[in-house]
Amino acid sequence: METKEISRAVISRLPRYYRYLGELNDEGVERISSQELSTLMKVTASQIRQDLNNFGGFGQQGYGYNVKYLYDEIGSILGLDKKHNLILIGAGNLGQALANYVNFEKRGFIIKGIFDSNEKIHGKVIRGIRVQPMEEIESFMAENDIDIAVLTIPKTGAVKVAEQLVSFGIRGIWNFAHIDLNVPEEIEVENVHLSESLMRLSYKLKGEQNAHIRRKV
Amino acid sequence: METKEISRAVISRLPRYYRYLGELNDEGVERISSQELSTLMKVTASQIRQDLNNFGGFGQQGYGYNVKYLYDEIGSILGLDKKHNLILIGAGNLGQALANYVNFEKRGFIIKGIFDSNEKIHGKVIRGIRVQPMEEIESFMAENDIDIAVLTIPKTGAVKVAEQLVSFGIRGIWNFAHIDLNVPEEIEVENVHLSESLMRLSYKLKGEQNAHIRRKV
Repeated sequence: METKEISRAVISRLPRYYRYLGELNDEGVERISSQELSTLMKVTASQIRQDLNNFGGFGQQGYGYNVKYLYDEIGSILGLDKKHNLILIGAGNLGQALANYVNFEKRGFIIKGIFDSNEKIHGKVIRGIRVQPMEEIESFMAENDIDIAVLTIPKTGAVKVAEQLVSFGIRGIWNFAHIDLNVPEEIEVENVHLSESLMRLSYKLKGEQNAHIRRKV
Repeated sequence: METKEISRAVISRLPRYYRYLGELNDEGVERISSQELSTLMKVTASQIRQDLNNFGGFGQQGYGYNVKYLYDEIGSILGLDKKHNLILIGAGNLGQALANYVNFEKRGFIIKGIFDSNEKIHGKVIRGIRVQPMEEIESFMAENDIDIAVLTIPKTGAVKVAEQLVSFGIRGIWNFAHIDLNVPEEIEVENVHLSESLMRLSYKLKGEQNAHIRRKV
């Protein structure tokens, strides 16, 4: 036995494997070869074998991967074998869209509380949860076992709110505010900067004219 | 002069440079050194110099980068110097959230039409745009110069809709449906798979126990 660190690149691909394996499992598929998975996922079979071999002995020559086992194993690596309690901060359209995603709950991400600074929507019920004022976050976090905060507020308030969340003991932040948060290293942040994603699309559309850019050497 | 291809890694970082430079520009900052930018962006100064040197001669020793010039230049590389006309398909919470993002329009991404299969919301006006039936997409695209479709519909319908969009001449798809689209290579797709982002956060939260995973060698 030897200990091996799994590369970031492999880790970043695990959620996609997890999604495909979950769908196969739902469809009652028990085994799949790297070749079949390759066709489905449009990734080379050799890449699949390399990636999945990181987890040791899932695949057997001539047998293929056990779908359910691999699904559970990757889920466990991703931390999906335990529930996460979330609070949502910002009950605008985006916040409401996220609150209504059934899939998150299915994966163990449970939204427990919703908060907003706009008093006009306090008391409004979104998916069975009453929107509360921001002042309630601290006591709510103390009474509930919250580990993740979802930030869907404008960037102007986001940095300050994130600092407060840290002081209240948050461990992870899923940040949709279009700004980089200023939190201690031990707080895990996952940014979803939608504008940047749209810019990447715009770049791709420019296509060939960008493929080679001159530079002075 | 020599032609040099810019790496994907550098390209993927450009939107973040663009965001910071845009904010500096808005604040009236004219020049910035790689060291100052480093402190601001929490990236090493050497990384910044390496990245920005790809574009040739922006930085001058002892002078720093010209913020406006660099901002415009990166914007041009990202294709933000021209307008993009978008249609939004799916007028649920997420679609409405995206339609209401002022920043997209500021960057030249203009939502021209909104479509939904749910007839109950046909005629509803979102940010001045009337929601139309899906059957109108083809003629709307023929009459308007649409290059990007934003897909915010459930995954069940997304693959088929994407195929239709391709047949109507779409060039790029910004896909929020939690499924991989099946479109020809020349169609540019940028996926925003929110569940996968949340899984990455969950993985990070598992922390140390994942840092080293045993495997048989």
